[in-house]
Amino acid sequence: MITIALDVMGGDYCPDSNIEGALDALKEDKELKLLLVGPSDLISEKISDWDPELKERAEILNATEVISPEESPVFAVRKKKDSTLVVGSRAVKEGRAEALVSAGSTGAVLGSGQLVVGRLPGVLRPPLASLIPTKKGFKLFLDMGANVDAKPEWLLQFAMMGTIYMQQVCHLEAPQVKLVNLGTEEEKGNALTKGANELLKAAEGINYQGYIESRDVIMGEADVIVADAFTGNAILKTMEGTVDFVMGSVKEVLKSSLKTKLAAMLIMKPLKAKLKEYSASEQGGAMLLGLNGLVMKCHGNASGKDIRVALIKSAQFARENVCGVMREAFKEDKEQ
Amino acid sequence: MITIALDVMGGDYCPDSNIEGALDALKEDKELKLLLVGPSDLISEKISDWDPELKERAEILNATEVISPEESPVFAVRKKKDSTLVVGSRAVKEGRAEALVSAGSTGAVLGSGQLVVGRLPGVLRPPLASLIPTKKGFKLFLDMGANVDAKPEWLLQFAMMGTIYMQQVCHLEAPQVKLVNLGTEEEKGNALTKGANELLKAAEGINYQGYIESRDVIMGEADVIVADAFTGNAILKTMEGTVDFVMGSVKEVLKSSLKTKLAAMLIMKPLKAKLKEYSASEQGGAMLLGLNGLVMKCHGNASGKDIRVALIKSAQFARENVCGVMREAFKEDKEQ
Repeated sequence: MITIALDVMGGDYCPDSNIEGALDALKEDKELKLLLVGPSDLISEKISDWDPELKERAEILNATEVISPEESPVFAVRKKKDSTLVVGSRAVKEGRAEALVSAGSTGAVLGSGQLVVGRLPGVLRPPLASLIPTKKGFKLFLDMGANVDAKPEWLLQFAMMGTIYMQQVCHLEAPQVKLVNLGTEEEKGNALTKGANELLKAAEGINYQGYIESRDVIMGEADVIVADAFTGNAILKTMEGTVDFVMGSVKEVLKSSLKTKLAAMLIMKPLKAKLKEYSASEQGGAMLLGLNGLVMKCHGNASGKDIRVALIKSAQFARENVCGVMREAFKEDKEQ
Repeated sequence: MITIALDVMGGDYCPDSNIEGALDALKEDKELKLLLVGPSDLISEKISDWDPELKERAEILNATEVISPEESPVFAVRKKKDSTLVVGSRAVKEGRAEALVSAGSTGAVLGSGQLVVGRLPGVLRPPLASLIPTKKGFKLFLDMGANVDAKPEWLLQFAMMGTIYMQQVCHLEAPQVKLVNLGTEEEKGNALTKGANELLKAAEGINYQGYIESRDVIMGEADVIVADAFTGNAILKTMEGTVDFVMGSVKEVLKSSLKTKLAAMLIMKPLKAKLKEYSASEQGGAMLLGLNGLVMKCHGNASGKDIRVALIKSAQFARENVCGVMREAFKEDKEQ
């Protein structure tokens, strides 16, 4: 049995889509237990019509407060000791759950992960990692936006964590790791990438393949793509914006005349199917790695299906013992 | 009359496409004179059949060496005193030409711009600026990749230069300036953006509108978009890669069946027309600003048409006295 905590009160469609996702995950995975974190009265009522077998695998963990997106994350995490995020994070910290899934505000999820769940010994900073769609399938990208003003040593550790994730969860033996830079030539780069490049070249246990230009990230030219949080955020947000922009332009063309409207009827179905291949919705949320357990952040507008996927993926993460392997790796790393 | 220097030996299709572009620019702009920089024998022969009136406005400036993309840019600029780039840059420095246009290697063009043409007094770093296609037309983006490890003061100056460019060349009275950041909230950012944000808020003569997230760059939510070179490069290369990727996927769908092939026939023409709206080829090349004259870097695979546009745009830049206005602005800035 694997136990995962769910922040019932996170996200735009809480609590209903979260409860729905919880129900579907329990139905799908018979070895899954859930800690439903939120106001116990409310949750009791919401799950009152569940099948008894499912209800048995769903424990309610009372938490009466909610951290809103408007609050200063660090301040709120410190102050609201009875918030769903803090209570859920404490459950992970204390080993009562292997992971916490939340669609709450990014800052608060990062904050409670770092401050309450806490870093594994030896980990300098926990990166936010995400499986992103590329031409060659889903690849792990980190740091997506957790730690600004990075140091070369942090990027080295991100590469280690990415490697362990891809080995344990995706079963790649020696995942290719590349570092985002503004050119692939050795002499190019800023102080950060040049420093990290030297550390990565010297590191054992990392299949480091050098620099990658940001235009090749979406081409899937590496299994693990490492960047500092500022650059990672810029790349991922630019991808999102550009996809929206280009598809918007294509749609404008398709609506522009009778001829093109006819064409639209002919291609809409295969076009949608193609776009679905690249949809991130089967990948769960973004993962805060390097902690005493996994913290998975779902999109604020997560549907019941998104929550279900996040819970199932978190359980897989726990079964593959990613945290245990990371704990060992960083212990050794610290001892050296 | 405005005189522009052209590196005849730069780019993949030199010298022929460069000569072709030069001819077309002279035909188009009767107030334009060119300095054709390269081996005089070769150029003489290439322009031997030109109309005498055009030939009169084309002076040959002999330069016997070429800097290749394989060479270390700074080293090559220092060593190859008789290279087309160094000779052309010297002509700008000495006031014999207002601008230099080259499709040579980026590093060497940046190097000769900085080392030979030289910075205007008071300018800390010359940014590489480019007009990029957005949902709301072409917007000025800088720095695209000239100066890594930026300081807040540099970004402030980039905002000043971008403002002057948009005022002089695009005749906007108070161009909106935004700074790329990983969120629009005041408390978000790294040390660089937080520092630059404070300077920009306090600056006079800049219509600063705060942060912009990278996903909104392509939406055209500002006239001047400022970023450090590393981030700027990441955003622009990601845009390029993502457009290629999405259009590639659309094309795959269009080829996938008889139905979709029929659709393709119906939409290909309007789709191409739409994409052309966003084509950068009418904008000339990337511009190195803040120097004693303009250095315009064309794409390595520049066609004759691209060279023509770059020459015409450079002449416009000179006629609008962008360098003169910048010189005054930075002199005042220094005096304060």
